[in-house]
Amino acid sequence: MRMYDIIKKKRDGGELSTEEIRYFINGVTDGSVPDYQAAALCMAIYFKRMSVRETCDLTYAVRDSGDTLDFSAVNGLRVDKHSTGGVGDKTSLVVGAVVASFGVKVAKISGRGLGHTGGTIDKLEAIEGFNTAIPHVDFIRQVNEIGFAIVGQSGELTPADKKLYALRDVTATVDSMPLIAASIMGKKLAVGDDCIVLDVKTGSGSFMKTVEDSVALARLMVDIGKNAGKKIVALITDMDRPLGYAIGNSLEVIEAVDTLKGHGPEDFTEVCTYLAAHMLSLAGKGSVDDCKKLVAQSIADGSAFEKLKQMVKAQGGDVKLIDDTANFKKANYSHKVICANRGYICKSDTEAYGLASLALGAGRNALGDKIDYSAGIILNKKTGDFVEEGEEIATLYSNDKSSFERAEKILLSATEIKDSKPEEEPLIYCTVE
Amino acid sequence: MRMYDIIKKKRDGGELSTEEIRYFINGVTDGSVPDYQAAALCMAIYFKRMSVRETCDLTYAVRDSGDTLDFSAVNGLRVDKHSTGGVGDKTSLVVGAVVASFGVKVAKISGRGLGHTGGTIDKLEAIEGFNTAIPHVDFIRQVNEIGFAIVGQSGELTPADKKLYALRDVTATVDSMPLIAASIMGKKLAVGDDCIVLDVKTGSGSFMKTVEDSVALARLMVDIGKNAGKKIVALITDMDRPLGYAIGNSLEVIEAVDTLKGHGPEDFTEVCTYLAAHMLSLAGKGSVDDCKKLVAQSIADGSAFEKLKQMVKAQGGDVKLIDDTANFKKANYSHKVICANRGYICKSDTEAYGLASLALGAGRNALGDKIDYSAGIILNKKTGDFVEEGEEIATLYSNDKSSFERAEKILLSATEIKDSKPEEEPLIYCTVE
Repeated sequence: MRMYDIIKKKRDGGELSTEEIRYFINGVTDGSVPDYQAAALCMAIYFKRMSVRETCDLTYAVRDSGDTLDFSAVNGLRVDKHSTGGVGDKTSLVVGAVVASFGVKVAKISGRGLGHTGGTIDKLEAIEGFNTAIPHVDFIRQVNEIGFAIVGQSGELTPADKKLYALRDVTATVDSMPLIAASIMGKKLAVGDDCIVLDVKTGSGSFMKTVEDSVALARLMVDIGKNAGKKIVALITDMDRPLGYAIGNSLEVIEAVDTLKGHGPEDFTEVCTYLAAHMLSLAGKGSVDDCKKLVAQSIADGSAFEKLKQMVKAQGGDVKLIDDTANFKKANYSHKVICANRGYICKSDTEAYGLASLALGAGRNALGDKIDYSAGIILNKKTGDFVEEGEEIATLYSNDKSSFERAEKILLSATEIKDSKPEEEPLIYCTVE
Repeated sequence: MRMYDIIKKKRDGGELSTEEIRYFINGVTDGSVPDYQAAALCMAIYFKRMSVRETCDLTYAVRDSGDTLDFSAVNGLRVDKHSTGGVGDKTSLVVGAVVASFGVKVAKISGRGLGHTGGTIDKLEAIEGFNTAIPHVDFIRQVNEIGFAIVGQSGELTPADKKLYALRDVTATVDSMPLIAASIMGKKLAVGDDCIVLDVKTGSGSFMKTVEDSVALARLMVDIGKNAGKKIVALITDMDRPLGYAIGNSLEVIEAVDTLKGHGPEDFTEVCTYLAAHMLSLAGKGSVDDCKKLVAQSIADGSAFEKLKQMVKAQGGDVKLIDDTANFKKANYSHKVICANRGYICKSDTEAYGLASLALGAGRNALGDKIDYSAGIILNKKTGDFVEEGEEIATLYSNDKSSFERAEKILLSATEIKDSKPEEEPLIYCTVE
């Protein structure tokens, strides 16, 4: 088998065989396929796409390229929620606590943020003492004992994806649907949860800018998951505005805690409720509608909040911060962003909001960059809200005063104000199952 | 400027600016653009093509990537003929001698063969003593004194093309029209002849398998040449059968000498006459029809043959071989290929004929391979000929007896025999000017 023939076949619109796809991914993993051939193939896939069968094979090859995790010692069903990445997305903390409060296991492997999107691991590390790198045996024990744990990736999970993603990132081949689907699902299958709820974001802050593309990606990932024997469903949710009002690590943890205490932002609470209800439903706790009631109940009676506290405590985090979020360390400086016009916010470019937060120190430009956990943005107004001239639309937080000018500029130019109220867009578009 | 943005722009169907193309080619030349990005861009160009303007810019950037040759010391117009490569193509030896016999300068830089196509430099080196690596000053002196010289490439002519071609060769991006045109014309312009006749081959033994594609490639190269201020014309000639009857280095030199002595194969003589006539016409020697008469005359009166002898002598070659080609060293073994069927040869896969010759030792599988100059094929029958069962269709020559079996097999399976005579196809399709 030769990479040349594989590239040419795909370039000419052919369907790659299982063996050809394995040959490619194994070669990427062990380095025997040079980057230039992998890049040429990715570009050919970008143009000629892949069938569902090819994408499944690619996913399985990615899954098998490294370690897979052994969860055989976990008692009971494990349910995962995976988001395709967004701005201000702290759902994992909330839905994990809610679902685990009903005895369904949540053993989550999360990532760090890069660029305009945040990562759950960074958010958790904003809680002093929280350890995201606990050994696998302790991880399993915690899952069995309290039903909820979130750790960072350890070991060599899907090394092929790591290499391929880095290459796609510099060769303009990231936004290819089969490559995105295989990357996400390869990792999910390597972790091997029993049930998976995918939160596919749509809009300015996400991979997929249109609902049509988001549904297509969701459809593909759900098909792959089912093909691999998983219980899986995808929700298409809005990312044309940030989720909730907080962007930045400790600010988002505070918002998640508020939500579990029953006074979170309406939009964020709604998305969490849908996601958690689907997770519970997949795990056999009843219909989605019934499960929505369960979610509301677990928030109202405090059992979900209690579950978060147990998890934070088990992983060494300072529970006092969760009990009273006023104890979180504040940024040294804050800056109010004032609106120069009067009217309705009709559009907010979520990606730019993420970049503004990044500029304040809340994110990473490159892997390995240090994060300012207290930095970020609290929005006062979002899409659809009316603002008076001179009114605050947001407050910026940072330990680097000089970052305010740039962040404010990004934020203001990403916020479009018009005379008429914009049409209200759905928060949750549809379900792909 | 970033390669990422250039790749993405082309991927999305955009037109690259002159600066972007320069940035790419300069980066390929100095190594600052990594192979994987160059490969991704080549694949994007394969799918999204390039405008004539972009292809011109690419050509000029390739031309300027290394040394250009200084021919200012040459007295008079220089005319070049360039073929896109074929099997059994020994036209350079004939047309160079013919054209130079009329005082028009032929200062040719030629290549070596690779794969199924032969190279003029290898053919000349089949003449004992012939030096294809004479210093530039001697090259110029020879061109001024006898008007005809052929040397191999020296110095760093178009290093960007060398690197890019090697990369395209392993990433299935060779057969992209703008990339082919820029590669060929970049080299031509770096040599800097005043007049250029392009021999664009069409059919099974060439880059372009259809007349339509061949005309499009010719059109593009002629436009590039004119844009650069050259007198240029392209002929589309047939490569669905080998040119002449000889394939292999010394065998082809013998056939070229026979042609200059007035008894060459009809098809080969015709193509040489057309090419040489166009070269002479571009150089101001009259209409193409008038120049055809000049060509016939120079062969009839021996002046073209005399010019070849002068050239061979000036470059140290053994003139006795040219005077009497029976003096060429023969291969130790020969093998007659017998036809098992009766009927008309209706198709011969020229590329396969080239590969059969390669198997006999006449070519190179990889750069640096040694060549057996006496190895090759003499065809007895070509497309359109009638063969009896048991009749010889070719004789194979090699110093490696064991190669006959494989070469015979390739040759026979590339020769299709049917009951009815095939339609006669043109030898010269058209002119693009």
